[in-house]
Amino acid sequence: MAGNTFGTLFKLTTFGESHGPALGGIIDGCPAGLTLDFEAIQLELQRRKPGQSAIVTQRKEADEVQFLSGIFEGKTTGTPIGFAIQNTNQKSEDYNAIQNSYRPSHADYVYEKKYGIRDYRGGGRSSARETASRVVAGAIAKQLLSDVKINAFVSSVGDIFVEKPYQALDFNLIESNPVRCPDPETAERMEALIRAVRKEGDTIGGTITCVIQNVPIGWGEPVFDKLHAQLGKAMLSINAVKGFEYGSGFCGARMKGSEHNDLYNEDGTTRTNLSGGIQGGISNGMDIYFRVAFKPVATLIQEQEVLTNDGRIEVQQGKGRHDPCVVPRAVPIVEAMTALVLADFYLLEKTNKL
Amino acid sequence: MAGNTFGTLFKLTTFGESHGPALGGIIDGCPAGLTLDFEAIQLELQRRKPGQSAIVTQRKEADEVQFLSGIFEGKTTGTPIGFAIQNTNQKSEDYNAIQNSYRPSHADYVYEKKYGIRDYRGGGRSSARETASRVVAGAIAKQLLSDVKINAFVSSVGDIFVEKPYQALDFNLIESNPVRCPDPETAERMEALIRAVRKEGDTIGGTITCVIQNVPIGWGEPVFDKLHAQLGKAMLSINAVKGFEYGSGFCGARMKGSEHNDLYNEDGTTRTNLSGGIQGGISNGMDIYFRVAFKPVATLIQEQEVLTNDGRIEVQQGKGRHDPCVVPRAVPIVEAMTALVLADFYLLEKTNKL
Amino acid sequence: MAGNTFGTLFKLTTFGESHGPALGGIIDGCPAGLTLDFEAIQLELQRRKPGQSAIVTQRKEADEVQFLSGIFEGKTTGTPIGFAIQNTNQKSEDYNAIQNSYRPSHADYVYEKKYGIRDYRGGGRSSARETASRVVAGAIAKQLLSDVKINAFVSSVGDIFVEKPYQALDFNLIESNPVRCPDPETAERMEALIRAVRKEGDTIGGTITCVIQNVPIGWGEPVFDKLHAQLGKAMLSINAVKGFEYGSGFCGARMKGSEHNDLYNEDGTTRTNLSGGIQGGISNGMDIYFRVAFKPVATLIQEQEVLTNDGRIEVQQGKGRHDPCVVPRAVPIVEAMTALVLADFYLLEKTNKL
Amino acid sequence: MAGNTFGTLFKLTTFGESHGPALGGIIDGCPAGLTLDFEAIQLELQRRKPGQSAIVTQRKEADEVQFLSGIFEGKTTGTPIGFAIQNTNQKSEDYNAIQNSYRPSHADYVYEKKYGIRDYRGGGRSSARETASRVVAGAIAKQLLSDVKINAFVSSVGDIFVEKPYQALDFNLIESNPVRCPDPETAERMEALIRAVRKEGDTIGGTITCVIQNVPIGWGEPVFDKLHAQLGKAMLSINAVKGFEYGSGFCGARMKGSEHNDLYNEDGTTRTNLSGGIQGGISNGMDIYFRVAFKPVATLIQEQEVLTNDGRIEVQQGKGRHDPCVVPRAVPIVEAMTALVLADFYLLEKTNKL
Repeated sequence: MAGNTFGTLFKLTTFGESHGPALGGIIDGCPAGLTLDFEAIQLELQRRKPGQSAIVTQRKEADEVQFLSGIFEGKTTGTPIGFAIQNTNQKSEDYNAIQNSYRPSHADYVYEKKYGIRDYRGGGRSSARETASRVVAGAIAKQLLSDVKINAFVSSVGDIFVEKPYQALDFNLIESNPVRCPDPETAERMEALIRAVRKEGDTIGGTITCVIQNVPIGWGEPVFDKLHAQLGKAMLSINAVKGFEYGSGFCGARMKGSEHNDLYNEDGTTRTNLSGGIQGGISNGMDIYFRVAFKPVATLIQEQEVLTNDGRIEVQQGKGRHDPCVVPRAVPIVEAMTALVLADFYLLEKTNKL
Repeated sequence: MAGNTFGTLFKLTTFGESHGPALGGIIDGCPAGLTLDFEAIQLELQRRKPGQSAIVTQRKEADEVQFLSGIFEGKTTGTPIGFAIQNTNQKSEDYNAIQNSYRPSHADYVYEKKYGIRDYRGGGRSSARETASRVVAGAIAKQLLSDVKINAFVSSVGDIFVEKPYQALDFNLIESNPVRCPDPETAERMEALIRAVRKEGDTIGGTITCVIQNVPIGWGEPVFDKLHAQLGKAMLSINAVKGFEYGSGFCGARMKGSEHNDLYNEDGTTRTNLSGGIQGGISNGMDIYFRVAFKPVATLIQEQEVLTNDGRIEVQQGKGRHDPCVVPRAVPIVEAMTALVLADFYLLEKTNKL
Repeated sequence: MAGNTFGTLFKLTTFGESHGPALGGIIDGCPAGLTLDFEAIQLELQRRKPGQSAIVTQRKEADEVQFLSGIFEGKTTGTPIGFAIQNTNQKSEDYNAIQNSYRPSHADYVYEKKYGIRDYRGGGRSSARETASRVVAGAIAKQLLSDVKINAFVSSVGDIFVEKPYQALDFNLIESNPVRCPDPETAERMEALIRAVRKEGDTIGGTITCVIQNVPIGWGEPVFDKLHAQLGKAMLSINAVKGFEYGSGFCGARMKGSEHNDLYNEDGTTRTNLSGGIQGGISNGMDIYFRVAFKPVATLIQEQEVLTNDGRIEVQQGKGRHDPCVVPRAVPIVEAMTALVLADFYLLEKTNKL
Repeated sequence: MAGNTFGTLFKLTTFGESHGPALGGIIDGCPAGLTLDFEAIQLELQRRKPGQSAIVTQRKEADEVQFLSGIFEGKTTGTPIGFAIQNTNQKSEDYNAIQNSYRPSHADYVYEKKYGIRDYRGGGRSSARETASRVVAGAIAKQLLSDVKINAFVSSVGDIFVEKPYQALDFNLIESNPVRCPDPETAERMEALIRAVRKEGDTIGGTITCVIQNVPIGWGEPVFDKLHAQLGKAMLSINAVKGFEYGSGFCGARMKGSEHNDLYNEDGTTRTNLSGGIQGGISNGMDIYFRVAFKPVATLIQEQEVLTNDGRIEVQQGKGRHDPCVVPRAVPIVEAMTALVLADFYLLEKTNKL
């Protein structure tokens, strides 16, 4: 187990710390014969990359993926796809200050207690840099599922929310602003808030909404591996995520059955979609949508108390190049994890009937 | 995969439809030498059982578990624990009405589309009756983790919420009322609401909060199998669940880092606990707490439109003996799934250091 | 892990000791819509059953399987198939003698050391009675793979070998004699040997050959899950098995490449088949064949030294009703495990191409 | 599944074709705090490496492993250990001849049929070059199990066998000759045979015996994951392996129970060890030993008929730099796979008792 593998049939295993020679992964189970669009893969990495706009961390990372196996003359061969991303910007000296101390709401402390050792450089394995590998694999999963449309976007930053239902949004506008919010006016207010927060050396939380369209009826497994349970696990495995809801979500817990039930049309579609496209853990052909909550990044550029490894509380000045708000860069990660979940169920579904 | 197994080292596989001869499961990986308290196991089943109070379904089910293997002279032997619960109250005729139609917001339709066949009696495998097996396994997991305290309770029904923080509640009061809410005044209002809703033939949603105490530092695996990701998956695999949040949850997404960070005390505990007892997916020794949203039960005792399998919309009178609100009976299920997740990490943690 | 599950997509988990209330299992992943032939399943159990002829153990066991779930109106529904076989002949008193001692070449000693506890009645979980569950699951796997022909037979008992190549045998004769050897003359000599050995209170080893026909090209996975590696593991998991070889096997290790290579015909078949129908772990469309070695049963009806649990050597008179030679009854077990391996690869193969 | 992962708790996933940029793998589950001896790892790679002596292939491969993650200041951190070995000697042009044809007893044909595409350069994923990754992981597993002694050696080449029992051999002599046979006189005869075979452009099969000492009582899981079943699968997953036997093996199938049973000493050891150190799938504290059969390498430096992809039979001259006999270089691979199996059971055993 050890937690570095995701998926059963379309299976990603990742390796790598933020400051080792490289990070990467192995995709096992991608069917043979898929012509890969390498530019599209690299584009997803660009969306996740630091330094892409003024409201994200200004760290420089090349984030170029090198494929090592499993591809021949541009096509997948059915053998495992190994890939690596070099860590080109390893300023380990930046982290000497934190070698002997534990930052609040970081994983420093628990890693050291759990393993008796920790790679303190840049958060080691707990760094969100690991998600670059997920984006690579998710980009391939997206290509495998070319009919399925996955659109994630920032639906709130702090107290600023997109008020419109997703049906009223134009997903083509997601990439039109650095916040990745398809509601341009709201995006501007979000961006202003992030800039203000950054000026204070502070950070701010937010939410991402993801909409999945064109999933056929029948994906997902009953009981433990329900489609939404796997999506929930996938999202909760992303750094900084604190909550997941799909369909009516937490609002649904306040409703009556007579309000909540989605009545059928004659063709099997439903008039409303509070179910969020999933019944009993299985896709019903309607849009699947869910929402993910991200806490504010724990690294502040402010003075803050830390615990030293000899049991003292010290004030430390936060420094480094960190994100004031993680959600804009998390959008491609949410999409990637969604694609990985769906690819697994797509393959599994091939085995359910005679 | 096929979704009927939960866990890696403490592993539960379940079988059974609501109206077959029996349901049950196999627990594989329970360590040898655990003296089982069989009354405690049966007690958990009683908490989940229909007919236990006036505000739950009045179906009669004996729900007595029979252990078939893996136990010798009252102790676990390290071999798989097989168990079965007979279905003694199979009124299949009740369900003839639904044989040819799909009820809104039930899994009828997707099962038939997915598998090309469905056991239409009582929801078949999608029935919440399957959770009885989880409660049995969870009760054993609880006994394995005897130092860990798991307390779940109803924290809202419809718009009625427990306003106090969990620290202000007396968990000994959870079982003092049929709602399983440890805040007696709130419990009364909840009970009244459920009775009113039932009178209308309607149903209502709610939430359950779960608090886990005494988990040592270090449980949970980084990256994909984070402790909260497994808890989230476990909860989302329970029938009718629409959302999961832990620690600050969705509220955390509205906060700033300077408000959200949990500053350390010198002993490694934290002054606040917005993290919810988990950092980077690993327990940090503080209380773990999370909240789970349940939608209102889809079965109404009202007239409602259904889809027939020849593509017509018909009005059908709901009947049967169903829960007006699922959360009181879901409390032991939430605890059971929590225990299963923790038992897995407890065993895995034994393998992480030399 | 814990070792009670076999397979990934067509997955069997078993439970049960020889002297508990019941044994059985759960089959997860059998595709929906398979019409089951229940008589054929029971027939396979009869082939494994004690007391079926004069040369096997005279224990009486009913060995009737009861299906508990996953089947509706005679067809699989895609949900887990739970089943149980009651233990009707539990003479625990027979085993009191062995409660405090360890029999040579039995698993008594290692179970007690491993788990600190053992169910000493009839070998507990180490009893070959567990294989009844495998035969049930294997019988269903056979029905899933109706085009594939699996024929196992006894190819040697002690020093008496079937000298003919399998192509010269009529598999219809396998069930014509109690030894399950399709070469009638050799079968007679084998039967005489088994009778003589039984008279001495002794036991004798033997081998089983299995031939699989009509497997399409492409089943099996490269690298770790090669088709023959899974077959080997499956066979070696059967009680008393000491060796496995396929194709040219150990003889192949004495040959030169120029003798061993199987030259092609123009249609892709090969002129010889020393490869045993598998190249690089993948079926090549030719017959697959392998041979399995079984040691002589350890339980003798002779005086024998045992180790007591207080560290003394004592002479004990073997008693009970045991098999003088295990291979006749192991034939359906070999076939069952073969079918389980193939069912898994059959399902997996559906996911390998776009 | 897809077959590129081995192990459950100590888990190796490999990637890489013989002629891509690199091959390598990820080891997940290695406990934290293990100080690695990198020279010992590289030494194992040297043992497997082509060109090491006159009787193996003269291909030149650097085979230097680069570790990419999971190690900090010379110790394992508990996070996944990623590693890569560059392919520095990719002469793809050598393989143009085989692009359109299928060599007898190679995996060319089945790969192309299975996947609809094949990387024909050097055997692609079916190349034994993949085993370099296994040797790296096995070397780490050996270090984890420092008390356990694993010694594999060549026990036969063609018809030349080591006649002495392993107890009469000095394992320190294994590396004293290029054959890796600890019986010097026999080694000389084997070497002469290999040289003669090579001169003819032919190849020859052989066997490897492996002896494991100091395994504590209790490793291995009953039923499906028996210690010898996992060892068997591990061995059968190595290229060119045709058979596996442990303890008395195929000879045991000719014996009587009264000859075969291993009588106990008062301390729980046994006077004989036909069981091969394993009872009921669980180690009993005695030496574990097994034997593995390797077929002759299929690549000949002779004229040979091949099948073209347009369905014709052509005569092709074999060329390239291939091993006349695979067993000398397979010795470290057998040891590596053995170590991987044992590491998994070592970790699992930590979870079996309270």
